[in-house]
Amino acid sequence: MTQPIKIEFLFDFGSPNTYFCHRVIPQIEARTGEKFDYVPVLLGGIFKATGNKSPIEAFAHIRNKPQYEMLEIERFIKRHHITDFKMNPFFPVNTLTVMRGAIAAQKLGIFEKYVDDIYRFMWSDPRKLDDPGELMKALSEAGLPAQELAALVQDAQVKQTLVDNTASAVERGAFGAPTFFVNGAIYFGKDRLRDVEEAIEAAQRAA
Amino acid sequence: MTQPIKIEFLFDFGSPNTYFCHRVIPQIEARTGEKFDYVPVLLGGIFKATGNKSPIEAFAHIRNKPQYEMLEIERFIKRHHITDFKMNPFFPVNTLTVMRGAIAAQKLGIFEKYVDDIYRFMWSDPRKLDDPGELMKALSEAGLPAQELAALVQDAQVKQTLVDNTASAVERGAFGAPTFFVNGAIYFGKDRLRDVEEAIEAAQRAA
Repeated sequence: MTQPIKIEFLFDFGSPNTYFCHRVIPQIEARTGEKFDYVPVLLGGIFKATGNKSPIEAFAHIRNKPQYEMLEIERFIKRHHITDFKMNPFFPVNTLTVMRGAIAAQKLGIFEKYVDDIYRFMWSDPRKLDDPGELMKALSEAGLPAQELAALVQDAQVKQTLVDNTASAVERGAFGAPTFFVNGAIYFGKDRLRDVEEAIEAAQRAA
Repeated sequence: MTQPIKIEFLFDFGSPNTYFCHRVIPQIEARTGEKFDYVPVLLGGIFKATGNKSPIEAFAHIRNKPQYEMLEIERFIKRHHITDFKMNPFFPVNTLTVMRGAIAAQKLGIFEKYVDDIYRFMWSDPRKLDDPGELMKALSEAGLPAQELAALVQDAQVKQTLVDNTASAVERGAFGAPTFFVNGAIYFGKDRLRDVEEAIEAAQRAA
């Protein structure tokens, strides 16, 4: 019996690279027997606090680099057999409400289902989730308590928790997403998942 | 007996990340039984043609990101047991002459030794190699034909070959260094070395 290892996954639904991780994390959990803690953060807030930008924005004017980023996405998708990814035609979608919704879903005890459903509506069966009507429709369609969630995302404590998660992420060294912490050690990017898994295995051996 | 696989490593001595790759490539060659073709390019020329910048310059004003890049360098060094790396105190060193020298060394049949020595004088026993006197001293110290190399780096064809290598790299999708091509497929960055090795193994299985 190994000691529990703290594995955090800082995510924002608006980032396709976090979606890809979300699809691969269950396999890593199965192989290692450890659970990832999903930590909702506001990527826009991290960017504002650090002066960073999304890869799409940052690399737009660099010749060849956007094409290479796309190639690496295709390779990742192929390697991990992700067959249902669809670029969201409404990208970039403002994720403030759906990220507050993730905090609300934690309070309501429906976090895992909420995360799975919202990721699906962002990157597989894509909707314009920053349109309040579209969001309510999607939540209802998924069988989530749309009214309860809509009420709770207005809650001051829910709003503050998202702000705190985001500020704490920056304090701990984050500058983008996906960001992982394995017993406090930071890893950035979908291409670090192998390193994350190796760090988990190393922590298990050390436990 | 497998068919030969074309593996290209586009390098510029001025990039520490290419140095780290240079130190790991022999291990990949030993494991796979394949040789890497080292292709001298001028990283400054690639940056100019693509509008890209070095990570040090591009990330300087992003909070947390330079520290994370340094952490990943430390992890890479530790993983690959590189014990003799020293940041060059004269960084950034203008590499135009030493990169032309790499083309000259190819003509003189001393390419492998030249590459190894210049990388050492850049990132292990660091010198100010863009100072002509320091460069001549370093070449002599290494037992390289300093006078012959100094003459040949003025050769129009040598200069043009470096220009052509650089232009061709950009045409084929490069935007920085290290860049690898495995049978034409592009991989960027020291952190893709595992992918490069897997691509070589896949090409061997397919051969």
